[in-house]
Amino acid sequence: MAKRFIGGIDIGGTKVAVTVASEDGILCRLSEPTLKSGSEEALPSRILELLQMACSKAGVPVVDAVGVSSCGPFARTEGQLVLVTPNICGALSDANDLPNHWESIPLERVLRRHHASLVICNDAVAALHAERLFGAVQDEPNCVYVTWSTGVGFGLCVDGHLLGGKHGNAGHAGHMLMSESSDAVCGCGNRGDLEGMISGRNLARRLGRTPAEVFNAARAGEPAALELAAEAARWLGRALYNVAVTLDTRSIVIGGAVWEHHGDWLAPVVQQEISSRFAALTRDVHILHAGLGALVADIGALSLVLPEEWMAGWRQRRPWGRGQADR
Amino acid sequence: MAKRFIGGIDIGGTKVAVTVASEDGILCRLSEPTLKSGSEEALPSRILELLQMACSKAGVPVVDAVGVSSCGPFARTEGQLVLVTPNICGALSDANDLPNHWESIPLERVLRRHHASLVICNDAVAALHAERLFGAVQDEPNCVYVTWSTGVGFGLCVDGHLLGGKHGNAGHAGHMLMSESSDAVCGCGNRGDLEGMISGRNLARRLGRTPAEVFNAARAGEPAALELAAEAARWLGRALYNVAVTLDTRSIVIGGAVWEHHGDWLAPVVQQEISSRFAALTRDVHILHAGLGALVADIGALSLVLPEEWMAGWRQRRPWGRGQADR
Repeated sequence: MAKRFIGGIDIGGTKVAVTVASEDGILCRLSEPTLKSGSEEALPSRILELLQMACSKAGVPVVDAVGVSSCGPFARTEGQLVLVTPNICGALSDANDLPNHWESIPLERVLRRHHASLVICNDAVAALHAERLFGAVQDEPNCVYVTWSTGVGFGLCVDGHLLGGKHGNAGHAGHMLMSESSDAVCGCGNRGDLEGMISGRNLARRLGRTPAEVFNAARAGEPAALELAAEAARWLGRALYNVAVTLDTRSIVIGGAVWEHHGDWLAPVVQQEISSRFAALTRDVHILHAGLGALVADIGALSLVLPEEWMAGWRQRRPWGRGQADR
Repeated sequence: MAKRFIGGIDIGGTKVAVTVASEDGILCRLSEPTLKSGSEEALPSRILELLQMACSKAGVPVVDAVGVSSCGPFARTEGQLVLVTPNICGALSDANDLPNHWESIPLERVLRRHHASLVICNDAVAALHAERLFGAVQDEPNCVYVTWSTGVGFGLCVDGHLLGGKHGNAGHAGHMLMSESSDAVCGCGNRGDLEGMISGRNLARRLGRTPAEVFNAARAGEPAALELAAEAARWLGRALYNVAVTLDTRSIVIGGAVWEHHGDWLAPVVQQEISSRFAALTRDVHILHAGLGALVADIGALSLVLPEEWMAGWRQRRPWGRGQADR
């Protein structure tokens, strides 16, 4: 049998990355800023080119299956998945500062032209899949992944089943309404939803500094920044409590840029908001740090189409160091 | 082959009901107030007696399987499901006005002594199961059931999978924190959770009248009652929006005493709170009235163990009229 290869595609609002892998591990990774101009097919067409380049670089003739981890939301047009992502599609953005007027991106239609074996999944859901296979919640049937970064996204797993929903949008709990009095406005237009209140973008706006500056100042003990960061962590904790009582999940894995750098001192604040409520439901609910770090998106995409027979070897060898020099 | 019979048990904070059914339909139903005194085994032991009485009355020698629809929360002790329900177990109630000091009720242990084929499920989850089989959301893979009554409980189904969670407590979204400034205290101790704010009990407390009086006055246009009822409906709508964006569900079935009598005029208020937000996620999210009404608990319990080969006949004949005279 010919050697098998798989491709992974990670689509974010800022950058896209493609990876090519064999049973031996990740062979090549390429990344570039997310293309936001041209026709509605421009971005998926460009991603196909990138994937082809990665194959050439790795000496891979063709990939047998492609996994896609993408920011959402998704919708369906004629049965095929399209991206309706306000931070990529100009026609969906209130700010309307994007160099296109896309109402949707026909992601599945374009990718399927070249890749019949294709799995597309919300990025936080793919991340949870990867954390369950190789990270912090291996074999845990009831668990949650949340990324705290520019935005806030969730992946949800209940009874061993990764939740998809009617259009693959399960996990958009970042748009859960948390406060009736907050003046924080989310990119989706909501007032007082979780993402609006705690995203790096919003915290930065409130102090007129970058998100990194806000959290570093908070760690250093600067009162205004510390209060803002702690308040955000309390809101995240309340949202995680909401998710845990809604789904009866046990482990909550937290990742994303904010958590990678500041999870150490924010964790007790978040955990306290969960554990101080309804003991019968929260007794064994606990938060964990993500196990795959910045690699979670690449591994998430690949894991969607990872052949079953590679699994044991990947778990043992964790072969994703190669090709990471380009990050 | 001998004729098969099944039993259904519905355990609520106020009353318990048992039903016995054959392929022909429900044969007998008995109901009585929930026993709250005696040993920790008193309630399940009494339920076994009731089921035996129902069998005798129906001329049924023995039931082959028993389905239990019960109020929660549940916990597990030595692998077996126990009830840790504050409105039945005296030791868990802050008010401590219950005539017992139970910390938990060994429901599964006692019932299994006589019934090896046993399925126990949260009542709102069982209700959703019944509504999916025989009610308002037949064959809908992404749907929610919510009961608005003395309390507020949810059943959740995503990708055709009825969510259970680590202890069968998925769907306790009534304890989702909704407001940071509400002074409504829930029975669980939360301040500002959905149930605390909109349960019949809380609304009645605020106007010093029974829940039925409050909603009837609201329907008649009495300003204070109308404002209270509409505000409650808006909070329910916000919570349903939260659940829908978290799970990407489509249909929301609403039942329970409040909705049965006032859903007609409250529905537009609830729907508006959902549809006015994040169009990409809420476009086809719609609320429906429960299809099984007050029978949902009995049918929910039976449906947990309904033999596959009875299904088509039950769907066609809807044979649950008999034995209902005792309601």
